[in-house]
Amino acid sequence: MNFRSDNVTGAAPEILAALMAANEGTAASYGADAISTRLKQRFSEIFEREVAVFPVATGTAANALAIAAVTPPWGVVYCHGESHIQVDECGAPEFFTGGAKLMPLECADGKITPAAVEAVLVEPGIVHSAQPASISISQVTEAGTVYTPDEIAALGALAKRRGLALHMDGARFANAVVALNASPADLTWRAGVDLLSFGATKNGALAAEAIIVFDPARLGDLAYRRKRAGHLFSKMRFLSVQLEAYLEGGLWLRNARHANRMAARLAEGLAATRGAKLLYPVQANEIFIALPEAVIAALEAAGVGFYRWGAPGEGSLRLVTAFSTRAEDVDATIAIARGTAR
Amino acid sequence: MNFRSDNVTGAAPEILAALMAANEGTAASYGADAISTRLKQRFSEIFEREVAVFPVATGTAANALAIAAVTPPWGVVYCHGESHIQVDECGAPEFFTGGAKLMPLECADGKITPAAVEAVLVEPGIVHSAQPASISISQVTEAGTVYTPDEIAALGALAKRRGLALHMDGARFANAVVALNASPADLTWRAGVDLLSFGATKNGALAAEAIIVFDPARLGDLAYRRKRAGHLFSKMRFLSVQLEAYLEGGLWLRNARHANRMAARLAEGLAATRGAKLLYPVQANEIFIALPEAVIAALEAAGVGFYRWGAPGEGSLRLVTAFSTRAEDVDATIAIARGTAR
Amino acid sequence: MNFRSDNVTGAAPEILAALMAANEGTAASYGADAISTRLKQRFSEIFEREVAVFPVATGTAANALAIAAVTPPWGVVYCHGESHIQVDECGAPEFFTGGAKLMPLECADGKITPAAVEAVLVEPGIVHSAQPASISISQVTEAGTVYTPDEIAALGALAKRRGLALHMDGARFANAVVALNASPADLTWRAGVDLLSFGATKNGALAAEAIIVFDPARLGDLAYRRKRAGHLFSKMRFLSVQLEAYLEGGLWLRNARHANRMAARLAEGLAATRGAKLLYPVQANEIFIALPEAVIAALEAAGVGFYRWGAPGEGSLRLVTAFSTRAEDVDATIAIARGTAR
Amino acid sequence: MNFRSDNVTGAAPEILAALMAANEGTAASYGADAISTRLKQRFSEIFEREVAVFPVATGTAANALAIAAVTPPWGVVYCHGESHIQVDECGAPEFFTGGAKLMPLECADGKITPAAVEAVLVEPGIVHSAQPASISISQVTEAGTVYTPDEIAALGALAKRRGLALHMDGARFANAVVALNASPADLTWRAGVDLLSFGATKNGALAAEAIIVFDPARLGDLAYRRKRAGHLFSKMRFLSVQLEAYLEGGLWLRNARHANRMAARLAEGLAATRGAKLLYPVQANEIFIALPEAVIAALEAAGVGFYRWGAPGEGSLRLVTAFSTRAEDVDATIAIARGTAR
Repeated sequence: MNFRSDNVTGAAPEILAALMAANEGTAASYGADAISTRLKQRFSEIFEREVAVFPVATGTAANALAIAAVTPPWGVVYCHGESHIQVDECGAPEFFTGGAKLMPLECADGKITPAAVEAVLVEPGIVHSAQPASISISQVTEAGTVYTPDEIAALGALAKRRGLALHMDGARFANAVVALNASPADLTWRAGVDLLSFGATKNGALAAEAIIVFDPARLGDLAYRRKRAGHLFSKMRFLSVQLEAYLEGGLWLRNARHANRMAARLAEGLAATRGAKLLYPVQANEIFIALPEAVIAALEAAGVGFYRWGAPGEGSLRLVTAFSTRAEDVDATIAIARGTAR
Repeated sequence: MNFRSDNVTGAAPEILAALMAANEGTAASYGADAISTRLKQRFSEIFEREVAVFPVATGTAANALAIAAVTPPWGVVYCHGESHIQVDECGAPEFFTGGAKLMPLECADGKITPAAVEAVLVEPGIVHSAQPASISISQVTEAGTVYTPDEIAALGALAKRRGLALHMDGARFANAVVALNASPADLTWRAGVDLLSFGATKNGALAAEAIIVFDPARLGDLAYRRKRAGHLFSKMRFLSVQLEAYLEGGLWLRNARHANRMAARLAEGLAATRGAKLLYPVQANEIFIALPEAVIAALEAAGVGFYRWGAPGEGSLRLVTAFSTRAEDVDATIAIARGTAR
Repeated sequence: MNFRSDNVTGAAPEILAALMAANEGTAASYGADAISTRLKQRFSEIFEREVAVFPVATGTAANALAIAAVTPPWGVVYCHGESHIQVDECGAPEFFTGGAKLMPLECADGKITPAAVEAVLVEPGIVHSAQPASISISQVTEAGTVYTPDEIAALGALAKRRGLALHMDGARFANAVVALNASPADLTWRAGVDLLSFGATKNGALAAEAIIVFDPARLGDLAYRRKRAGHLFSKMRFLSVQLEAYLEGGLWLRNARHANRMAARLAEGLAATRGAKLLYPVQANEIFIALPEAVIAALEAAGVGFYRWGAPGEGSLRLVTAFSTRAEDVDATIAIARGTAR
Repeated sequence: MNFRSDNVTGAAPEILAALMAANEGTAASYGADAISTRLKQRFSEIFEREVAVFPVATGTAANALAIAAVTPPWGVVYCHGESHIQVDECGAPEFFTGGAKLMPLECADGKITPAAVEAVLVEPGIVHSAQPASISISQVTEAGTVYTPDEIAALGALAKRRGLALHMDGARFANAVVALNASPADLTWRAGVDLLSFGATKNGALAAEAIIVFDPARLGDLAYRRKRAGHLFSKMRFLSVQLEAYLEGGLWLRNARHANRMAARLAEGLAATRGAKLLYPVQANEIFIALPEAVIAALEAAGVGFYRWGAPGEGSLRLVTAFSTRAEDVDATIAIARGTAR
């Protein structure tokens, strides 16, 4: 009953099996191997256009590298005030960009709006101001919500109009795809997304993410940036094979679907507890909920894992489900919560 | 017959097996898991003192983070002109330090000497000069040679005398340990080494290295630096377990011993070829050798993998053996070389 | 009638005369000259304690260097959302710190409060978060208001309690000193300020500011940072002498007093115009005022210089007076405004 | 008798007079003033083509900004091992570029050669290597010698062929122009120079240099870089006017001619001293000479200012003349040296 995060999970058996199989013989290093070559093709199919793929091991690396590719040191990145890049990466985007400025926007439900960006967007070309460079959004958001294709397209249109790049932190991209029942293309480049941090770690990989670049003009020397940041793996096949297996036969979507279902089930159960109040709509695999302290205490006593959220004493929790969450653990958690509330 | 590098290998079966075993259940993320905790203890035993351990996935990350921990942006790193940090990391140490200066030294056999450092060491405290900060050596060196404990100690003494930190790039540290039949402690902190990039990838891991910090005063905010560089893994157990299995039962030394033996065998065989000339003593698992062009052509035709070295047309090669190199491949390579030369 | 900024002014005659006088003969370079040596003593008297002094030529350099001295690359600087460092320095603090994060706070009248800082202050030591490092305030603020000694002391106490450094951007420090009739010491280190950007350019120098460091422990390698940023002048005497003349005989306070008086006179006159509304209290030498468009048009037609402020179409202006502002220009400006409004 | 450096001098009277004159009235800030506008035109005339001009106050700023404009963070700058950017700027180029690598070349007489660059030039496009980006030369060199137009053109041709930018550190550019009796155009863009740090401080200004950009494609966002580094002056007229007066009526060449003549006179006199040996040809205003210790002691005793050069105990000195050096001081110095040597 560990709902602390989707990164407390192990790896999906399919991915481990593929990793084993990839171990045979020698292979060209640094991405010149057969698996890495195939991977680019595989991603191009999934996104219905040719894409460039840069596998890395962490979401922070994917985000920071992608943002640095489209943001000069004197650039501004418009992002949500609660976004991972702003609050959970110890300044990685600032480091990788050489000192760009993140402009945190406070918007409802974890989703920034074109109006919020426009309200703080400065005129470009005035030498005193850090220069507008990029927008970064999270899909799934840090509030567990998802941007609809229209919402993304509205930001994409703004970005295009104002000469900004649009980056998507897709640490939980698969969960968004199944939540929206939309195509990966519709959620990204067709809506104006230039670069995507495509996450796999939280949804079944050991440690594998990919920077997907839709527009070759946005490549931005990413190959040098990745190497220079220590994120180019010598035995790249072991990174690429995780992503290949993740995509193979729709595993990524199957895993995400399960996680989302478990979240819906858990949310429904907890929300029906007396005194409970969902803080955000539960649209993917994260639940933000206020619960009476007695309920929280009972969950803790039973060893249910979660994070306190928000200000101390608020009684708000975050619970995250994953590809490996068991329905019986969900039901047991609900039972504990309701038993106590009665 | 792939001797291009020790990074064309897969992973050792023992390490893969441990990885599988580590997959069970959930685990605290970001290094708070049980395996990561045990790992620190294990390294402390091996180095005969308490050490701090920061697992990362690449040697470039280990080197750049370690150097940055002891080198301010205005610092100078004294290193060999052929060192990996100088020629093969696309400026990673400069990136991680925020712009420190690498001072390349040309010394014989890949090994820098105290005299070479002293010859270029500027007086500290003069504001116009980048400030002396650290020495970085590679063990095994980029010439395939090893520093003796005394050679390291001489650099360690200089470092101490001049207020410099001493870093060791141990991408092939295991190969040096078995080559010298010395204790890890004697090769590092007892000789004055402050930080070690402890390599495992080339010698059997999938992608795992560890920054070992011997002196707590040299910690240098490494935890923040690692996170900020995107090198803190969420599912850290999968990184830590590779290192644990690597150390378990002496696997690391066993693997390295095999690689070194294969190199000795290959070097002996090739050196006996007419017209051959070893460029450096073969002391670990790398061979640098000049061969007649006809021999090189024959090796290439037979599909033997290696790198051309030095200036074009020089006829110099680098061949690297590994934990997984087969004796029959070594012998076949020698036969091809000698058959042609005859 | 140019009220666009206090940086459209020339230099005070006393400062120019001192510059001429300093030209005699040769002098040791890089700050080893006699004037620079005297300057440290002079500032120590003015601040009633021994201080370290680092003259530079621009306010941006002073701010960015001072902040970098107390903020690591992974640090957070808490500042007002309208502060010069956040909106007018093209990311200089981010550049000089190596990528620190500025956290913009929206507070009334240009003055941040302890409560506003505490509301966003994260727990230190959690590796995922950029780390709380410093607070930076402007005195005079970007709204033309001044912090009282008590307001500064409250921020100083918070800083001390939470292990933060407190930096003051004193581009208009003299104007604040005379506005508050407080001692420089009371407005700075006695209230908990660790570093001050002491401005002189806007108040009579050609181009001269000084970083004043009150706590030697906060020196933070400033000498290397300044040199490395190209801000160590070879003919330092010409920088130091401006500051010396600025302090000599109270010129800095005399100049500031005049500027403040002119602002009060202008503000009073304009505020009495029909339809006028002061946006902030006028406490130093800056006026923010909303005026009817017809009044604005009349001022523009008469060649009165000012900046539009806030959102387009708001009818808000900023007018700044200086040491060289003539009373007759103030009165003429008022007459134009009132004539029209009638 | 102060020959320590040409930066121990004050400013030329013509420049001071112009500064005084420029003080009248208000002026648009940040370079929008009339003097700054004229300055661009003036430099365009002198260089016989349209150029972009970025005035700054120090040579380190000019060099580091210019190099950063044409060198990415993962770039390599080829330069002389004794160049100012390598040994005297505390890592400024590394700071401004975001971590580029300076590759020091040891060549005779302070002048790098195309062959020396080619010997270490790596193939571009290999992700492991820092990427060839620029060549930086000093004119006058740090050995007091000058590059002939042909020598520059040879480097320019190499740069063009290999896709590198060519930067010239012209801290003593005027001294080179008069030494070679060549046109500024022939010494720069006609020979392939892309950016010039045009020095004025050492030759009569208080603190004024200009980055001259010959090729608009090499502008490299210099305006943002300058602002962000704190090198955009608000009262820019005071910087621009120094440069304007410096160029006016050939003052820059007149001053340099005098300095060079004084150096020739001093060099001739000292070289005739028994036991003296010039280390480099004296081609501009710097003298490097080995003298018997007794001579050195006599010079020191007489209060003659100079720097010891090279390794301690070598008896080598550097003496620098300037626009303000008096012939009688030169003759007195020679007399002291010769008197002793007798």
